[in-house]
Amino acid sequence: MTLTIHPLAGMPEITRGDDLPALILAAVGRAGLAIQAGDVLVVTHKIVSKAEGAVAVLTGDEEKAYRTLVLEQAVEVIRRRGDLVIAKTRHGFICANAGVDRSNAAPGTAVLLPRDPDSSAHGIRMAIKAATGIDVPVIISDTFGRAWRRGLTDIAIGISGMAAILDLKGTFDAAGRELHVTEVAVADEIAAAADLVMGKASATPAALARGIEVPAGEGRATDLVRPPEEDMFR
Amino acid sequence: MTLTIHPLAGMPEITRGDDLPALILAAVGRAGLAIQAGDVLVVTHKIVSKAEGAVAVLTGDEEKAYRTLVLEQAVEVIRRRGDLVIAKTRHGFICANAGVDRSNAAPGTAVLLPRDPDSSAHGIRMAIKAATGIDVPVIISDTFGRAWRRGLTDIAIGISGMAAILDLKGTFDAAGRELHVTEVAVADEIAAAADLVMGKASATPAALARGIEVPAGEGRATDLVRPPEEDMFR
Repeated sequence: MTLTIHPLAGMPEITRGDDLPALILAAVGRAGLAIQAGDVLVVTHKIVSKAEGAVAVLTGDEEKAYRTLVLEQAVEVIRRRGDLVIAKTRHGFICANAGVDRSNAAPGTAVLLPRDPDSSAHGIRMAIKAATGIDVPVIISDTFGRAWRRGLTDIAIGISGMAAILDLKGTFDAAGRELHVTEVAVADEIAAAADLVMGKASATPAALARGIEVPAGEGRATDLVRPPEEDMFR
Repeated sequence: MTLTIHPLAGMPEITRGDDLPALILAAVGRAGLAIQAGDVLVVTHKIVSKAEGAVAVLTGDEEKAYRTLVLEQAVEVIRRRGDLVIAKTRHGFICANAGVDRSNAAPGTAVLLPRDPDSSAHGIRMAIKAATGIDVPVIISDTFGRAWRRGLTDIAIGISGMAAILDLKGTFDAAGRELHVTEVAVADEIAAAADLVMGKASATPAALARGIEVPAGEGRATDLVRPPEEDMFR
């Protein structure tokens, strides 16, 4: 099945209390589209955090205030080198600066991760279902680094309406051999794909993906977090 | 710009010496498409390895032969737990089982990584250019795990005709703040996006992506490998 990802461009700067689902649906309309069954909506966490008011003001020495905020948002510092802090967030994600970000934030502020990104995704999904009658999975994305690879990719930090992982256990390859590679992080791949149309500097904080057979289920973004007992690298 | 990714389905089982570019172009034609300027071709490494003869026969105790082969293909074992070996390959990639894979391999064999995946990508690109007159970037993909996240995603292990990373240094966000997140692993995101249409068990080992503004340059897949001096997790 051919996959299509449409950027949802031209959204206004988001502030606390904005009706994000309505603004997303307006962007869908501006793109000449309508939500269809089978679509997947990807929303960058930044506009979700802003709409939810998950924004901190950096008072006094801005750099110092930012560093302090990062440590406040971390439940565990995994590695530290100079100003770079790799930390675990209270959600369980391991990422740079505990997910606190100053790019695309108003001057003197930093954007935090949403308090409960799965719940944020669920809220957007339900509002879109109420407005359109169509129930589509929603992924909240963020931009993370990787341990051994340079460059950043978008991954899923919030999920509603689909399983996070496609489990191929018990399926067979073309030669009839049971697949060893059993778990595909589909939600992360969708977030990465959506980033290709979003860009980091443009006012395109959401995308509509069409033609993806998502794994059925009611997943959570923490399904994508390796549990400590399996983790060999913290 | 809307992104589309077309699966290139129905390719035959590949064996040593097969003309992969011709088979890919045939699959493009069967999909009702023709290569266009601006396309990006993604090819899973497995068919590249098979065409190049990078396949090992597992003699005697198959499980033991496989384990031995993994250690032969590793230049450094990073972590080991039970049967799981996280190793560095001679290319510099850090992945499970040094990239040696038995799924979608003929019984009693294992597929290795191509000897020089950038060169493989370059060869496919040049053959397609010769056949069609159109020069499109080629990415060779493989399926890797991540340190802290469950599930696997496809990433780029070979690149020709584009830069691996989009460097946003010196660009500004919507509020005029210089972007801190400066490097996007575009080649990895394209590989992940392509995996969404390929599936692990189907005869769809390649995909054609359209509508991606790739970073210009002549990148190498090792541009995506974090150099040891930056690596905090090995």
